[in-house]
Amino acid sequence: MLINCVAYQEGKKLADISVEAISDYIEIPECFVWVALREPESAELAVMQEEFGLHELAVEDARRGQQRPKIEEYGDSLFVVVRTVELDGDQMHEGELDIFVAANYVLSVRNDVKLGFLGVRARAEHEPHLLAMGSSFVLYALMDAVVDRYFPVVAMLEAELEEIEDRIFIKGSQRDNIERLYELKRKALVLRHAVAPLLDAIGKLHGGRVPLFCVGTQEYFRDVNDHLQRINASIDTIRETIGTAIQVNLSMVTIDEGEVNKRLAAWAAIFGVFTAFAGVWGMNFEFMPELKSHWGYPAALAFMFGLCGYLYYRFRKSGWL
Amino acid sequence: MLINCVAYQEGKKLADISVEAISDYIEIPECFVWVALREPESAELAVMQEEFGLHELAVEDARRGQQRPKIEEYGDSLFVVVRTVELDGDQMHEGELDIFVAANYVLSVRNDVKLGFLGVRARAEHEPHLLAMGSSFVLYALMDAVVDRYFPVVAMLEAELEEIEDRIFIKGSQRDNIERLYELKRKALVLRHAVAPLLDAIGKLHGGRVPLFCVGTQEYFRDVNDHLQRINASIDTIRETIGTAIQVNLSMVTIDEGEVNKRLAAWAAIFGVFTAFAGVWGMNFEFMPELKSHWGYPAALAFMFGLCGYLYYRFRKSGWL
Amino acid sequence: MLINCVAYQEGKKLADISVEAISDYIEIPECFVWVALREPESAELAVMQEEFGLHELAVEDARRGQQRPKIEEYGDSLFVVVRTVELDGDQMHEGELDIFVAANYVLSVRNDVKLGFLGVRARAEHEPHLLAMGSSFVLYALMDAVVDRYFPVVAMLEAELEEIEDRIFIKGSQRDNIERLYELKRKALVLRHAVAPLLDAIGKLHGGRVPLFCVGTQEYFRDVNDHLQRINASIDTIRETIGTAIQVNLSMVTIDEGEVNKRLAAWAAIFGVFTAFAGVWGMNFEFMPELKSHWGYPAALAFMFGLCGYLYYRFRKSGWL
Amino acid sequence: MLINCVAYQEGKKLADISVEAISDYIEIPECFVWVALREPESAELAVMQEEFGLHELAVEDARRGQQRPKIEEYGDSLFVVVRTVELDGDQMHEGELDIFVAANYVLSVRNDVKLGFLGVRARAEHEPHLLAMGSSFVLYALMDAVVDRYFPVVAMLEAELEEIEDRIFIKGSQRDNIERLYELKRKALVLRHAVAPLLDAIGKLHGGRVPLFCVGTQEYFRDVNDHLQRINASIDTIRETIGTAIQVNLSMVTIDEGEVNKRLAAWAAIFGVFTAFAGVWGMNFEFMPELKSHWGYPAALAFMFGLCGYLYYRFRKSGWL
Amino acid sequence: MLINCVAYQEGKKLADISVEAISDYIEIPECFVWVALREPESAELAVMQEEFGLHELAVEDARRGQQRPKIEEYGDSLFVVVRTVELDGDQMHEGELDIFVAANYVLSVRNDVKLGFLGVRARAEHEPHLLAMGSSFVLYALMDAVVDRYFPVVAMLEAELEEIEDRIFIKGSQRDNIERLYELKRKALVLRHAVAPLLDAIGKLHGGRVPLFCVGTQEYFRDVNDHLQRINASIDTIRETIGTAIQVNLSMVTIDEGEVNKRLAAWAAIFGVFTAFAGVWGMNFEFMPELKSHWGYPAALAFMFGLCGYLYYRFRKSGWL
Repeated sequence: MLINCVAYQEGKKLADISVEAISDYIEIPECFVWVALREPESAELAVMQEEFGLHELAVEDARRGQQRPKIEEYGDSLFVVVRTVELDGDQMHEGELDIFVAANYVLSVRNDVKLGFLGVRARAEHEPHLLAMGSSFVLYALMDAVVDRYFPVVAMLEAELEEIEDRIFIKGSQRDNIERLYELKRKALVLRHAVAPLLDAIGKLHGGRVPLFCVGTQEYFRDVNDHLQRINASIDTIRETIGTAIQVNLSMVTIDEGEVNKRLAAWAAIFGVFTAFAGVWGMNFEFMPELKSHWGYPAALAFMFGLCGYLYYRFRKSGWL
Repeated sequence: MLINCVAYQEGKKLADISVEAISDYIEIPECFVWVALREPESAELAVMQEEFGLHELAVEDARRGQQRPKIEEYGDSLFVVVRTVELDGDQMHEGELDIFVAANYVLSVRNDVKLGFLGVRARAEHEPHLLAMGSSFVLYALMDAVVDRYFPVVAMLEAELEEIEDRIFIKGSQRDNIERLYELKRKALVLRHAVAPLLDAIGKLHGGRVPLFCVGTQEYFRDVNDHLQRINASIDTIRETIGTAIQVNLSMVTIDEGEVNKRLAAWAAIFGVFTAFAGVWGMNFEFMPELKSHWGYPAALAFMFGLCGYLYYRFRKSGWL
Repeated sequence: MLINCVAYQEGKKLADISVEAISDYIEIPECFVWVALREPESAELAVMQEEFGLHELAVEDARRGQQRPKIEEYGDSLFVVVRTVELDGDQMHEGELDIFVAANYVLSVRNDVKLGFLGVRARAEHEPHLLAMGSSFVLYALMDAVVDRYFPVVAMLEAELEEIEDRIFIKGSQRDNIERLYELKRKALVLRHAVAPLLDAIGKLHGGRVPLFCVGTQEYFRDVNDHLQRINASIDTIRETIGTAIQVNLSMVTIDEGEVNKRLAAWAAIFGVFTAFAGVWGMNFEFMPELKSHWGYPAALAFMFGLCGYLYYRFRKSGWL
Repeated sequence: MLINCVAYQEGKKLADISVEAISDYIEIPECFVWVALREPESAELAVMQEEFGLHELAVEDARRGQQRPKIEEYGDSLFVVVRTVELDGDQMHEGELDIFVAANYVLSVRNDVKLGFLGVRARAEHEPHLLAMGSSFVLYALMDAVVDRYFPVVAMLEAELEEIEDRIFIKGSQRDNIERLYELKRKALVLRHAVAPLLDAIGKLHGGRVPLFCVGTQEYFRDVNDHLQRINASIDTIRETIGTAIQVNLSMVTIDEGEVNKRLAAWAAIFGVFTAFAGVWGMNFEFMPELKSHWGYPAALAFMFGLCGYLYYRFRKSGWL
Repeated sequence: MLINCVAYQEGKKLADISVEAISDYIEIPECFVWVALREPESAELAVMQEEFGLHELAVEDARRGQQRPKIEEYGDSLFVVVRTVELDGDQMHEGELDIFVAANYVLSVRNDVKLGFLGVRARAEHEPHLLAMGSSFVLYALMDAVVDRYFPVVAMLEAELEEIEDRIFIKGSQRDNIERLYELKRKALVLRHAVAPLLDAIGKLHGGRVPLFCVGTQEYFRDVNDHLQRINASIDTIRETIGTAIQVNLSMVTIDEGEVNKRLAAWAAIFGVFTAFAGVWGMNFEFMPELKSHWGYPAALAFMFGLCGYLYYRFRKSGWL
């Protein structure tokens, strides 16, 4: 579905143009066309391929979707794939933004992205001195918008991790903790798969050998790179912490179990002693003088309770109970 | 076994030719010969070696099979080894495709590959504008076909992993889970051994210094590279997730065990108390007034059941039962 | 908040100048201006941006704070972000120092840093032969001050780790140990996030291609690099040791538990034997000759205690008790 | 001990020569001398050092033995150390082959190598077209022979691992498994120490800057490199699989233990119930009407066995027994 | 403390010279001065700084000590820090050797080093053809001496590890093993911190761009590099083996525990059966015909012992006892 199709010159909007006019406008010097598509059908992409002269392999990738983030050069043009990660409640929603860009055009294709990029266009149109840098500034603005949306996801993961950490040394919560840690690890991996390949790829847009039309916006792409590295470092910390937390959780389970075992041992000992002595005086020997004694029974009870009480006290003191 | 042997010129099929004619056809400018062999005998390879002038070490590798994926340059020709991984039910079947390729020929040798590559030839012959790129396009088409067959394998591994994940927090399934995780890890390693070395090698076909006859198809090989990276990233995720799942599974086992221990401790305590008091009133002291009482027995039973009931209630409340 | 704003020439202080005069002084050859800000408001930064002609993206980073350590070139100027880590009792306090530097100015902006950098300025003014190296020496002095503050933090982490190590083989302290190890790991990660990215970045200031105005101070930046590497190596050792300590702690828990189990087994056996024999002589068969015997009871007791004593001795000898 | 000392020219054997004649023969153009020593004494090495003009450090290394695999250039000559790993039953036997090689000589020194390299010489002499490549082909042939001997070792390790894997999910074999896994890991490390450094070093003999006299045999050394990489990949798989197997083995131990605990709990419950009720009817209250009843005893027994039978059935159904 | 201060020319000792004469001698072409200090005071270093014209930062490092191993270039001179590790009984003693070296001088400063380097000087003076290579040979000789002292430390660690391995599968030694493994890991880390940074640094002295006065001794530094790599590989093996050993030790603990649990379960079952039947015949029902029988008691005992004996036999057979 076509969202909009606009021609710009020297940072100012020339006109909303029709799709058929694209191939004319991209011939005008100092002018570039910015087209936005959303879940396009195959036919729409074919039209674009013809208007912009896009490479077949790149169009094929955009058609299929589910690509890894990447930045590929086809002659003087770039094909950029970035993955969006949005929060939908506490679920993560993945989408994809494919951008075809050259000196004289930007074609963005979004798939499964909930929140659109109209804001990016609006902001760019309000800053003509920046938009005047041309199509590479639009590329920056789109990538920056996608990357900025990673931050709340990282924040959510960190908050979830902190919540688990607060409960990790609390008895009885280990089953729950381990389930949440596992789920969190899964989410961190999803985000990492959006971030890490993009971090590898973005080096092509600043520093060394940069496509000609991106030379003037290098510092902006370095800024995106810097954001990606912050996110990547956070994800690494989250993953490492999850690993340690799983180990620690197992330790806590084992420690708790050890305490249960000690308690079991202690009570078993106490009742064992009690039952053993009751058994002694339940024996049927004829000559057991204490059985005849008037004070035998209370004395026996006193002895048995006393002994158990002493054991209880000892276990208590040594921390088993 | 010779499957077919065809000469092409400018993207069009010239003729099915005999093996003996190969050395003539490869002299014709702008012409290339595409030969496909299947489980060839040593003699067949020797003929090919002579017709194409192949290097002894490369032929030796093809004869022995069981090679690592690799791309080796011998003068102006390439020797490419890729490993096929096919699904046979839920088992993985490994095979090998060796490709000798130069500007004027492609010789593919398949071993233990169930599904052939006739479709690749058919498709190439229907797209003469692509086949006109020459032998390097055939190389691309063959590699692409092999790599495309990895995707269903990855999908199978991911489905299997998800199935295990669904059961990982269910009590009593841990023995089964751990067996399946171990088997899955084994399978992931097999696939990785087909993918990772190829990923290392394929950089030779795009980007930097590329063999002369592959220069025009660089973007196609970059596309294969991109597919390989997606598969590799998926395998890495699978492996990392398996590692975590094994740890989590162990934690679940230990947690379950802890619960069994608690239950054991609780019941032992209840029966211990019951038996201990029964033992008391089973003692043979002569002066135990309660034994004479008419209500002694029911009172004792009431006391014993009451005490045990209270213990049961307490254990229940603290989650031990 | 402006802390001070001073112009220097050939290592000597020229004058305290007003903010408005900055743009004049930075035009004077061989002269540089050193401005220090603390938690500046947006407007203050805007003034500085104009006076020094700072790049928008860099100023934006300084405004937002919470950056990763980095060294970015903007034309002939550098934007340096370093993170301070200070000890506040046994807590770690993180702050940030942003430095804008070029041949003719240094602008430092500190946020959340408790201990200021007045000492750095004082020391620099007392060593005019060093300050004469220009603004890059000031950059070195500031970075060196920040890095020197990492050492006591490392020392604190190492001391804490040694304290835990002293207790790791002591029974009963495992729960406490694991909590402290987890907390220590968290702290080590915080410090590492200040150190590691800076270590990656500082290579830009010595060795290969260095900004022109830093060429003369390369050896000083290499010294900072060396300090960072020592700290980084220490952190790596701490992290690796924590990992091993967590494993060892789990082993100790399991070993302790095994000993408790053995003790439990031993006592259960002793009381089991005792109760079993008491049960035998508590049976109500009519013809049990030993029950009639005068010595039956003491003999039975002697037998029971003797047997239990023997078991106790055996268990003791085999280390179960 | 001198094994043999032969001069070759254009791929053909010139003559068996005496040690003293070496320095003359190596002056003849297009001729090279191939000397093989075995556990040489210091004096023998000194003679060789003089005849060939070997570097002192290299000779010192050969004298001491126990070197890491390496390839060092001394001027126009190479000093190559490779480690042999041979199977002696299921034990691994390590040895060392030191090779001094230049355009006009090959000196091989073997230490602790059981199987000699006479076959290599014989095969080389039967293929004069290959031997005509000169001393670098001999170097290749020797290295290839050593590397080929790694394959059966890898196969043995893989067979051992598979055998353990077959038993890993069988109850009761865990103690044995863990011992065998540990031993296998040790063996894998030994092999890896022979392979990995050689893999690092062999890059010097093909690809980039190669010693002049090895240029013509580059493809052969690449072949050795390829074999080494296959072996290395196999070792990596073995090591990773061992790691997982140790984890899985621990999980199996814990799972088995959990089942034992459940069974213990179940039987303890059944006997506990039985004993508790026997204790009830063993109490000495005077007014226990059921004791007087004719059917009291069988009814009680029926009740007790029935209750225990019911418990048994319940435990059986829930998988505890 | 000054140990000695000698001038050398063409490999021969010129004279013991006074500290004040140093600056004269280092002006003489082809002559170099070799000074050895031990735990120098600040003033001594200041004198040396002036005589040799040392860089302030390097002198500062030597004054403070506790540096990481490193090799730094200051103009035409080098500042080398190596760490000594000596055995003191089975304890490891760390020290530091700082070497300032240029074409015309060597200044070595040792701190906390027990065994001195007089032997190095003596050996060098006895080999004038080597010493004639100049100051870089002295640097090599000193570094070689330090590195050679690492070998016995590695041997000690390996011996300790083997001793632990011999005990790892022996029951009851796990607590001791784990303590020793932890201590061994700590020691291995100490040694690694002396070796690994030096290995990174020493590449500056051979191979690529080497300081001018070291060009002639490159092969010697490569030899030191080779020794360092052997030591490093050994340490890596030790660390990896320790990691596995800790895991295996935990497995052994858990397996042993499982066996104790089984034994506990078996004995509990045997005594439980015994006590249960004793309880049956201890019931007070009036109509229990077997109680009246003359053979009741022996029959009951026979039955109880027989049943327990049978259980014992079954448990024995299944390996629980």
